[in-house]
Parts: sequence; structure tokens; C-alpha cells
Amino acid sequence: MLEQIDLTKSMSKEDYRKRMDALEPELSRLQRECKAQHIPVIIVFEGFGAAGKGYQISRLIRALDPRGFYVYSIGPESTDEMMHPFLWRFWTKLPSTTQMAIFDRSWYRKVLIDRFDGVIRESRLLSYYNEINAFERQLAADGTVIIKLFLCIDKKEQKKRFKRLTDVPSSAWRVSEEDLQRNKEFDRYKAMNDEMLEQTDKAYAPWTIIESMDRSFATVKIYTAVIEALKAALRRKAEGAAADTVVSVVPTPASEYSDEVLRTSSLKKTDLSLSLGREEYRRELKRLQNRIADLHGEFYRRRIPVILGFEGWDAGGKGGAIKRLTEKMDPRGYRVHPTASPNDLEKVHHYLWRFWKSVPKDGHIAIFDRTWYGRVMVERIEGFCTREEWQRAYSEINEMEKQFVEHGAVVLKFWMQIDKDEQERRFKERMENPEKQWKITDEDWRNREKWDAYEHAVDEMLVRTSTMAAPWIIVEGNDKYYARIKVLRTVVDAMEQRLVRYRDNTD
Amino acid sequence: MLEQIDLTKSMSKEDYRKRMDALEPELSRLQRECKAQHIPVIIVFEGFGAAGKGYQISRLIRALDPRGFYVYSIGPESTDEMMHPFLWRFWTKLPSTTQMAIFDRSWYRKVLIDRFDGVIRESRLLSYYNEINAFERQLAADGTVIIKLFLCIDKKEQKKRFKRLTDVPSSAWRVSEEDLQRNKEFDRYKAMNDEMLEQTDKAYAPWTIIESMDRSFATVKIYTAVIEALKAALRRKAEGAAADTVVSVVPTPASEYSDEVLRTSSLKKTDLSLSLGREEYRRELKRLQNRIADLHGEFYRRRIPVILGFEGWDAGGKGGAIKRLTEKMDPRGYRVHPTASPNDLEKVHHYLWRFWKSVPKDGHIAIFDRTWYGRVMVERIEGFCTREEWQRAYSEINEMEKQFVEHGAVVLKFWMQIDKDEQERRFKERMENPEKQWKITDEDWRNREKWDAYEHAVDEMLVRTSTMAAPWIIVEGNDKYYARIKVLRTVVDAMEQRLVRYRDNTD
Repeated sequence: MLEQIDLTKSMSKEDYRKRMDALEPELSRLQRECKAQHIPVIIVFEGFGAAGKGYQISRLIRALDPRGFYVYSIGPESTDEMMHPFLWRFWTKLPSTTQMAIFDRSWYRKVLIDRFDGVIRESRLLSYYNEINAFERQLAADGTVIIKLFLCIDKKEQKKRFKRLTDVPSSAWRVSEEDLQRNKEFDRYKAMNDEMLEQTDKAYAPWTIIESMDRSFATVKIYTAVIEALKAALRRKAEGAAADTVVSVVPTPASEYSDEVLRTSSLKKTDLSLSLGREEYRRELKRLQNRIADLHGEFYRRRIPVILGFEGWDAGGKGGAIKRLTEKMDPRGYRVHPTASPNDLEKVHHYLWRFWKSVPKDGHIAIFDRTWYGRVMVERIEGFCTREEWQRAYSEINEMEKQFVEHGAVVLKFWMQIDKDEQERRFKERMENPEKQWKITDEDWRNREKWDAYEHAVDEMLVRTSTMAAPWIIVEGNDKYYARIKVLRTVVDAMEQRLVRYRDNTD
Repeated sequence: MLEQIDLTKSMSKEDYRKRMDALEPELSRLQRECKAQHIPVIIVFEGFGAAGKGYQISRLIRALDPRGFYVYSIGPESTDEMMHPFLWRFWTKLPSTTQMAIFDRSWYRKVLIDRFDGVIRESRLLSYYNEINAFERQLAADGTVIIKLFLCIDKKEQKKRFKRLTDVPSSAWRVSEEDLQRNKEFDRYKAMNDEMLEQTDKAYAPWTIIESMDRSFATVKIYTAVIEALKAALRRKAEGAAADTVVSVVPTPASEYSDEVLRTSSLKKTDLSLSLGREEYRRELKRLQNRIADLHGEFYRRRIPVILGFEGWDAGGKGGAIKRLTEKMDPRGYRVHPTASPNDLEKVHHYLWRFWKSVPKDGHIAIFDRTWYGRVMVERIEGFCTREEWQRAYSEINEMEKQFVEHGAVVLKFWMQIDKDEQERRFKERMENPEKQWKITDEDWRNREKWDAYEHAVDEMLVRTSTMAAPWIIVEGNDKYYARIKVLRTVVDAMEQRLVRYRDNTD
């Protein structure tokens, strides 16, 4: 989940002030309403050291009625806590139905800090994840709202903040040896955090990433995220449904797309000016296509399957990229699966069924032109599935891809990104060119009108489903040459890396 | 789950014929109705070799419209299947919304036969369970009814059946070397099956144990279980709820208790004539109490916690047993927690919260006089919680107890069993004895009227929550001396065994 996020986000003083003036009373009001409706609330603050958890918690509670919440700071286990099952200290701190419990670090400590410090055995890790998920599932099923915030900064920023703290005697105590160690091995620690986010991001207790390089931005996003979660909980309560089930076949309201603050991915930051000259394109294309043909043979010999998914804006260049990718591949070893609306047989099965049917045999390559991600894009936006269905689809899809990877597959997902102007240019070109007219329909123009809604859905999709094992790659697509070469190069890199791993561990 | 079951069940020819005459047309009708309502159905047959899976499947489909189902026999993976992710061969066999898929062995093969044969690595086991649970959860959430039947016979019966098959050349091929090996190591294989049942018995896809020593009984129970599951699915569909959520605060209908066939535990077989003479009682009591005092000290020194739960009929002898158990214990090292109706503070928390608060510190003993099992007994029967709530409580409770055990605790649960006459005798005695009058209330008499409903709930509870790590012990309670000694002896045995394990593995 930490791959695709945009850490450059910030907010002007003026914008900050204006938003907070609206957000603070709104949060106060919602706290009272949740209390009246007997909805217990848990807010978890996790994230990297010096990301500002302490500051943000004190900033958040400023809007809250102090009689309605507790803040718990979760340090290492006391001797007493060690003498109880791991979750005991959290069960005993649960809020009642009229309270809010705010955790500065939490049960996640076990699989982050304790894991990093080697306090827990790696062989126990999966059962800790299972215990944590069971804990949250049980609470959510009982009506508790669980809001999980992950405050994120980068290694350099963390180092700077640690230095600023240690330079002053009065704050030097705030930075421990362990903090500095985690900064030194930031990438290793970050990977543990990333795995944790992937294992525990569930529809009943989703994570929200808080980009915390800029303090004001982080505050506004935290307020906004908490407010949205409480509103959703009140709406569910009003509908009489249990906390983990929201069954309403209503397209996501337009208002949900409007707030830029809630977007997390780096999609908007894609540098669409990137381009490649014709000569370089030709040279690289030839080199990479030959390399892929070689690798394809090697993969066949070693029986490693490859799954490539292509998504992107209409006219984003999926077809062209797939064509270049497969041009020199042995046709007996790959297959392109175009994904249209489900046919009659597909409609009477689980939405993932048709993709499972096309899982490649070991040694083969399956290329999906549009994929299972339709569930969280078109089906979400058009209301073809319920909110509850697309919300739980993120986990379901991650579970499926993880099974592919566990089986040994290389799994990559490409998002072909272009801007709105470029799309219009390509649409018009298609309409004017008799040979390309078949590629453009009225539906394409209609979808274009929902650009903002799609952008919001894509943003959430990229963050929730970009996993270490099956990452999303955003392809800068305005220049077709650049885009195609990036796709090919990414595939070559991933296949080569897989062979290295294969040599290291041939089981 | 296999601890508490009663394998002696059988059925007369006459009773069988009478029941089947009603069940067969009922199943036919329900198949048509599920088809009309677009409910996909999966029926899984698992269980021990020679338990009669093949026969029972052919018996079951006799009532079914052959255009509406497929039977899949799941053998070892073919080369082709090995070259796909493990669940691929099952995804591709899923029924459409108008079909029924019947599996003769299934995805459970991976964690049973393959595990026994050493084909899979033990370190992968937990992730296989996770994959299986995710698979069934995804399908159930999408509306599929998943009926899982486990056909059970004992080692001796299996050996006999294998012999009968191998004696005749025409059927000898049916018994493989591996079958014979699994019979030879029956206990080891049974433990794997038991663990599998515990790990995968979920509210959205529960297991039904089919006692298969008597073929007719097994057929009737399979028909009854399938019919009940289809009826429940149709009811949920009619209520417009998703398959995994049934929210209705209606006490379980009385009709559900009526069918003896669906009861699985050995509760009814409890030998209540067991008794102990006064002399032997005194001698044993003294010996065991001294032994417990010693063990208590040893447990304290080694910091091993103990959790003992007591449930049973009113006047079943819980209090007396607890008193004898604790008489010579150091009072600083144990605590008795009486469990009454939840107080105001407990009511505004999760139902397990108050029990988590009383989890003993390492080295201490916690004794619960009535327990968290109130959720699946009194709360179920009185309608204090929804059907969905008590149905998912079995997993929730198992998850909690497993966490206690993983932390190192000894966990035992006692069911104090008496018969209805004995209860009446004790009630009357309490009413007549001025010193015992406080022990009896009008509510006790009212609960007594619901004896059948309780018996049904207790039966289901014993089967679904008796785990290898935290077993139920049925205590024959008509004779108080016998009951008390059995409780003490069981505690002593479990503590002694724990010390042996402790010495083997002191981490």
C-alpha cells in the first residue's frame, strides 16, 4: 500500500484555516451523535517514528468533548501485560458504546516494532495477523467503528526530524536508540509496515494513509477521514444494518469524489511529459522484444507462470502496449484475454470465476486486457454491485493475487495513464480515421463524463491493491513510445528478478 | 469437534423408510426452489475412508433432478492441476446460480490426505487454511450455500470395512495402500481431521458431522442437514439479506429442537448411573486436593495460567465441584468469577469483554462459574441476541480460547450433566431446606420448562466448541461424589500433562 502514495502533498495556511473552521465543529457534532446512537469508536494511530502521531492526536481531541474519549499510549508490554495473552491489554481498554478510544500505537506494535526488534518469532507472524484480524472483525461485527490511520513520512524527513529533536536537550529523550536504528534500516522496517497494511486492510476496518510530510495537510486529512468514517457508521446505523454489512445498490454519491484531500495515490503526480524519440524507441523496442522472447523460453523451461493485467483510461494505449509486448513471443506460450461485460454464463457465477478460469498454466503467460478490477471501477461507479460488494472486493482481489504469487507466478498490473486532453485528441482521431472508427463508441464518450468519479475510484484501487507481491505500475501514457517501452522494460525487469529468486531458492 | 460425538447412533428400517418417504420429495422440491431463486449450492463430502461417501452421494442424488447438479470426484492433482494455483481446479468447477455441485472429497484434501502423506510443508499449513477460508467466505458472501458433511466412523469399523472390501477381488481395488496406512495411524490422521474441522467451521460454512457407523442413520441425517441448510438459505433470500448475514431477533423456532437426528454430541449417552462410595470419595478427594495444591505451586513457579469454565444444568453441582476444587488452593493464586446477567457497564461492551478482563495472569488460576457460553445457550434461547450473533459466536469463542492456549494457558470446560428427574429432586430439596432456599428461584423453574431447547443448544455447543486445545468434559453429575472427583481428576491430569509438555519445550 505504500508504493503508490504521493508524499508531496501539502496545504496552504489559508486553505488549512478555512477547512479546519468547518471540520472542527463537524467532528464535535458527530462525536455527540455517535454517543447518542451508542456507536463505540476506536481510532488507531500508527506510522513511522516522528511522523507526528503525538501532535496529531492532541490536534484531533481539541474538537472532542473530553468526557467522551480516552487516549491510550501503547509502549512496550509491562511485566503484567506480558503475563497475559497479547490482546488482553487491548480488550480491557475497549470503549463502551458511548465512548471513543484513541490509540497512540496499538496492537500493531506486535507485528511492527516487536518484529523489527526480533522479539517475536517469524513463524508466529501469520497467527498474530490472524489474531489481530479476528479481534477487529469481532468488534466491527458488534458495531464498533474502527478507524485506522497510518502516518507516513520518508526516510530523509524522519532523519531530519530526529536530528531536530536530538539537538535540543529538552526533547532529545524523545528519540531512542531504537528509533535511530529503524531510521538506519528504514527500507527493511518500511517493508514490514507495508506487509502489515496488506494483511490487515479489511472492509470492516480499512486503513487510511496520512501523508504527513506537511503537518497541516495531515491534520486536515485525519479530520476528514474520521468524519467520513463516523458519517458512514451513522448512516449504517440508521439503515439498521450491522456494522460490517452495507447493502445498498446506490452508486457512490458524487460528493465522495469531490475532496482531493482524501486521495492518496501519486496518480495525479504522473509526469505525462515523459517521451521518447522514434530512434530510441525502435532500438529499445527491438532489444526488449528479443529479451522477452528469450525470457519467455526460460520461463517455460522453468515452469514459471506470468500474469499481466492492463487497465487504464479509454484510449490509454493498452492495446498498443500489449501488441508490442507479444509481438515476438511464441504464440503457443501466451494468451491475451480481452475482458468485456460479463456474458450470460459469467453473470451466473462469482465475479472472479471467469478470471480464475483463465489463470495460466505454469510456464505460460496470461495477459488481461481489462481485468477483475472492473469490480472496483465500472461496477462501483455504475452501481452494478452494492457498496458492500466493491468495498470487500479489495481484500478479495488481494487474496486471489496472493494465491497466484504463492503458487509461484509473477503478477504485474499496469495502469495506462493519460490526461483528459490527450484522451479527447485520441477519441477525435479515432472518429476521423476510418480504420480506427470501430474502436470508439458512444459509451466511451459517456464514460469520459465520469472522469472525476473514475479518478477517485482508481486512486483508491491503486492504494488498496498495490501489494509488494503484485504491484501496480502507473505508466505515463501521453507519449505512446515512452509508454510501450516502460511496459516492456518493467516486464523484463520483473522476469529477470524472478529468475534470480528462482536460482536462490529452487524449491 | 470429533471428541464429543456419539458414534453409536443408528436407525431402524421402519423409521428409516418412514422418514425417507418424507425427506425425498422435500429435497426435490427444495432443489427446484433454490434453482428458481438462483441460489448456487455446494455440497462437500469429507470424512474417513470407507465411511460411505460414495454410497451416500448416490443415495442423495436419487432425489435430485439430474439436470441440476454435477458430482465431482476429487483425486490427486493431475499434472495440469499441479501447474495451477491450488484452488484453481475448484474455482473452475463452481456451480452457476441454478446449479448444485457435489464434491466427493474437495479442497480439504490438501490439508488432510496431502498433509498426511507429507506432500505439503507444515509451514504452509496455516496459509492453506487461510486460503480455504477466504475461498468459502468469498463464495458465501456472494450467495452460495456451502454445506459441508463430515462422515465419521471409528478405527475398528474402518478396518472391518476395508477387510470386507479387500476380501473380494472385484472390490479390492477400492482400498489403496494409503488407505490402510491411514487406518494403521488412525489417531494421527484423526487429529489432522479434527484440526481441520476446528480451523474451518465458520458460521458462513459450518460443518455437520455425520455419524456413519449405521448407513441408514447417516442417510437420514445427510438428507435432513441438506434440507435444513437449503430452507435456511431460502429464508435468508426471502428476507433479502446476504448469505452470510441473518439478522432477526427471533428465538430459534421450537421445531428446530425437535429432531433428534440432528443432535451429534454424546450428551444423551452420558452414563448417569456412575457413582462413588463415601469412603473412596473421601480418600480420593484428599489425595487430589493435595495434588492440586502442589501443582498449583509448581504452576505458579513456572508461570503457567489455568482457565476452568463450569457450565451445566441448574442444580447440576457446579458450586459444589468448585468448592472442592479450590478448598486447599492458595487463595492468592486463584479466583472464582461468578457470571450473572451482564451489568450496565458490561451491557455497553462486547459480550466477551468482561471475560477478557478476568483472564488470569500467568501462574494464576481463573475459575468461571458460568461462562462466555451464555451467548450460545441462554442468549440464544431467550432471543437476547440475533441468530447471526450466536451463530458466529462459536468461531469467536474458539478464537478467544485459542489465543489463551497459544499464550500458554491450560483451558478446560466442564459440563455438569444431570437428568431431569434428578434436577427436580434437587430443586425440591432446595425449597424444603431453609439453608438452601436462596439457591432456588422462579426463574430456575421457568428455565426447566425449556429443557429441550437447552439440550439442543448444549448439543451444538459441545460439538462446535470442543477443541483439542480447549476440550469440553461432560461430567456425569447425578452422583455428586462421582462428579466432584471426576472434575478434580481431570484438572490434575491436564496440569500434569502440561508440565510434561513444559519440560519438553521450555520456550
